[in-house]
Amino acid sequence: MSKAKTLEELQKLINAAEKDGTIEARWETVAAVDPELVQQLTHSDFDSNSVDLAVVAEGTPASPGAASGILCLSTDAVLATDERGEKTILVCSETTPADEIGMRLAEGIITARGGVSSHAAVVARGWGIPAVVGVSSLEIGEEHVNFGDVKISEGEAVSLDGTSGEIFFGFNEVTISKEIPEVKKLLDWADEIRGERIGVLANADTEKDLITALMFGAEGVGLCRTEHMFLGNQLPLIQEFLNTQDGSSENILDALEATQRSDFVELFKVAGSLPVTVRLLDAPFHEFMDVSHPDSEHNPMLGTRGVRLALLRHELYRMQARSITKAVSDLVEEGGEPSVSIMIPLVVDRKELGIIRSWVEEEITETAKTYNLKNLPQIGTMIETPRAALSAAEIAKEADFFSFGTNDLTQMVFGFSRDDIEKEVMDKYLELGVLSHNPFKVLDEAAVAPLIAAATRAARISQPGIEVGVCGEHGGDPVSIALLVKAGVDYVSCSPFRIPVARLATAQALIAQDKN
Amino acid sequence: MSKAKTLEELQKLINAAEKDGTIEARWETVAAVDPELVQQLTHSDFDSNSVDLAVVAEGTPASPGAASGILCLSTDAVLATDERGEKTILVCSETTPADEIGMRLAEGIITARGGVSSHAAVVARGWGIPAVVGVSSLEIGEEHVNFGDVKISEGEAVSLDGTSGEIFFGFNEVTISKEIPEVKKLLDWADEIRGERIGVLANADTEKDLITALMFGAEGVGLCRTEHMFLGNQLPLIQEFLNTQDGSSENILDALEATQRSDFVELFKVAGSLPVTVRLLDAPFHEFMDVSHPDSEHNPMLGTRGVRLALLRHELYRMQARSITKAVSDLVEEGGEPSVSIMIPLVVDRKELGIIRSWVEEEITETAKTYNLKNLPQIGTMIETPRAALSAAEIAKEADFFSFGTNDLTQMVFGFSRDDIEKEVMDKYLELGVLSHNPFKVLDEAAVAPLIAAATRAARISQPGIEVGVCGEHGGDPVSIALLVKAGVDYVSCSPFRIPVARLATAQALIAQDKN
Repeated sequence: MSKAKTLEELQKLINAAEKDGTIEARWETVAAVDPELVQQLTHSDFDSNSVDLAVVAEGTPASPGAASGILCLSTDAVLATDERGEKTILVCSETTPADEIGMRLAEGIITARGGVSSHAAVVARGWGIPAVVGVSSLEIGEEHVNFGDVKISEGEAVSLDGTSGEIFFGFNEVTISKEIPEVKKLLDWADEIRGERIGVLANADTEKDLITALMFGAEGVGLCRTEHMFLGNQLPLIQEFLNTQDGSSENILDALEATQRSDFVELFKVAGSLPVTVRLLDAPFHEFMDVSHPDSEHNPMLGTRGVRLALLRHELYRMQARSITKAVSDLVEEGGEPSVSIMIPLVVDRKELGIIRSWVEEEITETAKTYNLKNLPQIGTMIETPRAALSAAEIAKEADFFSFGTNDLTQMVFGFSRDDIEKEVMDKYLELGVLSHNPFKVLDEAAVAPLIAAATRAARISQPGIEVGVCGEHGGDPVSIALLVKAGVDYVSCSPFRIPVARLATAQALIAQDKN
Repeated sequence: MSKAKTLEELQKLINAAEKDGTIEARWETVAAVDPELVQQLTHSDFDSNSVDLAVVAEGTPASPGAASGILCLSTDAVLATDERGEKTILVCSETTPADEIGMRLAEGIITARGGVSSHAAVVARGWGIPAVVGVSSLEIGEEHVNFGDVKISEGEAVSLDGTSGEIFFGFNEVTISKEIPEVKKLLDWADEIRGERIGVLANADTEKDLITALMFGAEGVGLCRTEHMFLGNQLPLIQEFLNTQDGSSENILDALEATQRSDFVELFKVAGSLPVTVRLLDAPFHEFMDVSHPDSEHNPMLGTRGVRLALLRHELYRMQARSITKAVSDLVEEGGEPSVSIMIPLVVDRKELGIIRSWVEEEITETAKTYNLKNLPQIGTMIETPRAALSAAEIAKEADFFSFGTNDLTQMVFGFSRDDIEKEVMDKYLELGVLSHNPFKVLDEAAVAPLIAAATRAARISQPGIEVGVCGEHGGDPVSIALLVKAGVDYVSCSPFRIPVARLATAQALIAQDKN
């Protein structure tokens, strides 16, 4: 039987289950609804009274929902337009972390390049911002763009539908979907089934993300990225730090530590006593540098990122460990009960994690002594390189928890760079039936999922009680969630806007598992 | 007991074993010699009567041996200088496949960037050309270079010692080590132990490579790369092909096919009835394109390479399959007995290999019909992505043989790009003891070797009798060879100049295995 795909079908199922009144009927209803219906019912759409705008182009739908605003060709333009109180749409060739300030303010994002796993797409989904990427007819000029024959100048209005991939010329009113009672009921029932068996956490970098995530029912933060804390106003600081040698950079680190501490305080405050896992810096070195820098890397995805940068410049992670511990202390002082963990990214080896762990622990212990802090942050690691997954039993000995970074793991298991493969090759794979899904959207059942299952088993044998979660994009995809539940993970963490889908999909996976 | 490291020690061991006269004594001798001694005794060195030149810089020793010649800053300069009958040393920031014509002619190579697994280093070792890479004090100008304070102009002489990493100002005579009788005897004994249990083949792209390899005792070609057949004079053709759409490119393909056919004939002629495995094109798309091309990739190592390019432009592999089959037919017509196999690179999935295999088979069958050829080339695949290794049981069903590409496999298992990681990060890993060896030099015992062993087992269960070899750089490294023999591979294939080392090291691994 195909699953309920419309609000009407959902309403019927809910009514029948309520009439029946049994637990079994509620379970059946939870099992019978397409998770993407929940997603559709929690997104923005063009107002039903709005005019029909002309479609000027189509691209890859990358983040659902409708958006309308002034076309801006740069973060600066977004900032200036936003300051005038106008809605903005960021249009560019592709985005990098340096654009995130602009992306965060924009109503929607359109890029000429990239696929569903490009930076623009991933960030947009994370923030619930509608986005269309890979618009091949889009040519970007100095002060205008062309969608094929249609020229739109900076300052004119543009609209997009991130669900269909369509781009429109002109402005349309957008409505935010209200919370629909049937959806609320369905998700409450799903949570009832889920109970404490598997957690649904959010990937949330800021208090704004987390507020959205909590509204959608997240039980904490499975992944707080910290890259944005090194960008914007902080970028000159980190650039200066990377250009100086050890010893002469204390002032820079103090400045970074102070701002990060207050950023963390804001986030931890919103989280209350819910768990928050903070990932230490995982940006490729080159993202902080001028692209024309002579040290720019050939394959930055396989370069000086994450823990590798920390091995070269250990003060970075030490500074982050201090700022996190101080933020925790600040909250405790105010009577809070923060539950914070620190996560080391891109590890390949037990010894590597051991060394970094000892550095981080040193800072935590030292800081905790000064602030008289009792409950110290736990320290875990992301499992995102094949070597980490293959060495899980060893690495588990140095980790309080594991979190699978399924994006990078997929990237390395396949040898696919998301930015490059999704342009043309992925379409060919799907067209020829070599792959039944894009493995960046739906977890690869043949190799990546078994690797996660085997690593989870090995870790639990080596270190009973170790907590194992997933914080890649797949944590918000229903088919992937079914595989992850089967692999035995303790929680999934996903974009705030995918939380409702994840709540439903984990419950469905548990129902399916219990039947077998 | 430490192994024999000098010619004198070797001579003593040989004399004692000959006096003893037993097989056991010969085995003991084979087991007691450091394989690197054999390597040292088969390389070039500065003439003992030559003058002492001033050392002007030091870099990473990347390919052993001594070389002396005119400093050339480009392939064009090498070609022009070589035409005048002068010896050349190619000096550049780093090399790409486009430089290979120059590299092949040069006596030695010096690069400012890169590590032991950079393009320059790998190609130099493959061709037995002395090389020093990563010379950090080297600054390259328009018509001269500076090694720190010392300026050397194009046209002046420079020398290098690829064993020590030293660079010298001036010219020195170089002698090629003669075949030392004791080395010959040792290797004959090693072959006696090895028998037919494990093969030692060469990575050889041209008849010149193969002649060298056979001189050193190679039993065939485990890897003939074909990228060079698309470069040089052919580069404009392949560029034109990639820029045209299907259908309009027949003439280009015919031209490529004709030259490749005659290249293959030359190679197969030298091989006689020894096995030759030809790998179909595995270059990243961007190497054929201008680097400023808008389609240049972010992470080319994870991009449109190998079989992925073939999936987009299937005529490429079809053309190669035809030219190989026609070359085989040419040889058979002349009374030869060529034993040729075709290898598909960078596969991730059984279905993918199945599709490519059917295309290649179509061309082979069609061509064989025309030429009345009976023994058709076998078709196998490289296992170089983690996904291929993890899916070995499935992929084996479409493959006549497997060949592990350990360089790429290491790259993806660790998430290390050779070009980027060997600059700084690898040193840190070694310094901190995270890794005991550079995994690009010595096979990773913790994850890559077990992955190869598991994939080999799985393939043999799924497809009994499947032939399994190794054609990465590790096939010439003694420690790696021990792990590969333990993993149960049928042969190793390595650079021509590493063949003597591989013959000794495989015999030593078998002795060690038989003892247990």
